[in-house]
Formats: sequence, C-alpha cells, structure tokens
Amino acid sequence: MKIQAINPQRLGDKITEYWSPKIIAQMNDYHFKIAKVQGDFVWHSHAGTDETFIVLDGMLTIQFRDGELRLGQGEMAVVPKGIEHKPAAESECLILLIEPAGTLNTGDAGGEFTSEEEWLQL
Amino acid sequence: MKIQAINPQRLGDKITEYWSPKIIAQMNDYHFKIAKVQGDFVWHSHAGTDETFIVLDGMLTIQFRDGELRLGQGEMAVVPKGIEHKPAAESECLILLIEPAGTLNTGDAGGEFTSEEEWLQL
Repeated sequence: MKIQAINPQRLGDKITEYWSPKIIAQMNDYHFKIAKVQGDFVWHSHAGTDETFIVLDGMLTIQFRDGELRLGQGEMAVVPKGIEHKPAAESECLILLIEPAGTLNTGDAGGEFTSEEEWLQL
Repeated sequence: MKIQAINPQRLGDKITEYWSPKIIAQMNDYHFKIAKVQGDFVWHSHAGTDETFIVLDGMLTIQFRDGELRLGQGEMAVVPKGIEHKPAAESECLILLIEPAGTLNTGDAGGEFTSEEEWLQL
C-alpha cells in the first residue's frame, strides 16, 4: 500500500522561498501545492481554470479589481477562471493551492514571480 | 464581487447526519464536500476518479485490502481510482472530500449509505 498520509501544514517547514509553490499531492490531473507567501504577489488571472486557496497558517488577502477577501487559518476560497486577482500577506502565511497540473502561478501575467511546477523535495 | 470565504470546519456545525456529504464549494467540475462520519462506512471504489480526503477534526481511518491509513486533524490522502477502501472513525470526525461532481459516496458499491449530491443548506 503506497497511499500516504500527507500533512500540508507540517510540510510547510520544508519551504524556504516565498511565492514558490511546491507540489505535495496529485488527484487525477490536479495538483495540491503548498506555498509560503509574504508581501504582494502580482495581478494575474487564469483563463482556463478556477483556482482554490486554503489558508493553513496566517492570514491571506486576495485582492480583486472590485474588492478583497481576507482568509484566516482554515478558510478557503475558489477564484473563478478569468478573474483578475492579487494575493498578498502582511505577515508570513502558508497556503494550500489546488489547481490543474500545469497551471502557472502567475497565470497570464508572467514575470519574475513565475515558478516552474516542481514537487516538494522531502 | 461574489467570491466568498468558506470555513469548512465551521460549516461542520450545520451537518447533522453521518456519512452524508454536503457540497460547500465548486472548482471547475470538482466539488468540495464536508461530511461528519462515525462508525464504519462500506467497502467501495471509484472506477473513474481519485478521491481526496482531508481531516478537519478528529481521526479518520481508511482501510484498504492490504493495510490502513490513519489521518489526524490537518492530514490528507488521495485514494487512487479503482482502489477499494473503507473509511471508518471510532469517534465523530469531520472530513473534507474533493472529487469530481457526480461522484457517488459509495462508488461502485451502492446500498443504503448512498447519498444524493446536495449543496449544504446555509
């Protein structure tokens, strides 16, 4: 039996770089990724897919063109495809992302924050 | 802006029936469902899809034909498609399930535990 128990929050200890999501699990063609974030990310959208954010530790703000959402520990939100958003965190925050494999973190925006899809090295 | 913050653990207070998952969010054609569980579920598998379990509160055991997995609060596991499994919990446990819309809780097994897909009434 190779099915493993995964503790996303504990795996956060392995993350050393901000805004650099690492894959920790796969369900069909979807990836679960954890990311440590602090400061402001870039405005972007994903034309082809919704994106799920779950806050594991800290407080995440997701800015939209017409408002913002603040997510505390244990809260989640689904950002619909095509909706421009900018994640931000005043203090260090650990998040779990769920989205189709191949989804780029910067979506349509590109730029220096863009990170390659990569499994977390355990 | 209609995008909402969702607190799966807090929504567990609205669940009154065991083994009856309720949808709380949708990402593309996938549903997030919460379920309160206690006692033994039925052996079943899902021929067409993987299934993700995240434990929000309590301890979940997932039995497999060749072993078992115990998931505590904050832990998750992805059960691959086609793999027979039987969830169980000695004490009340709240779980978050992620799977394609239309996935039946009893998979190929059917029976009295089968519940219709239904959004949580808030």
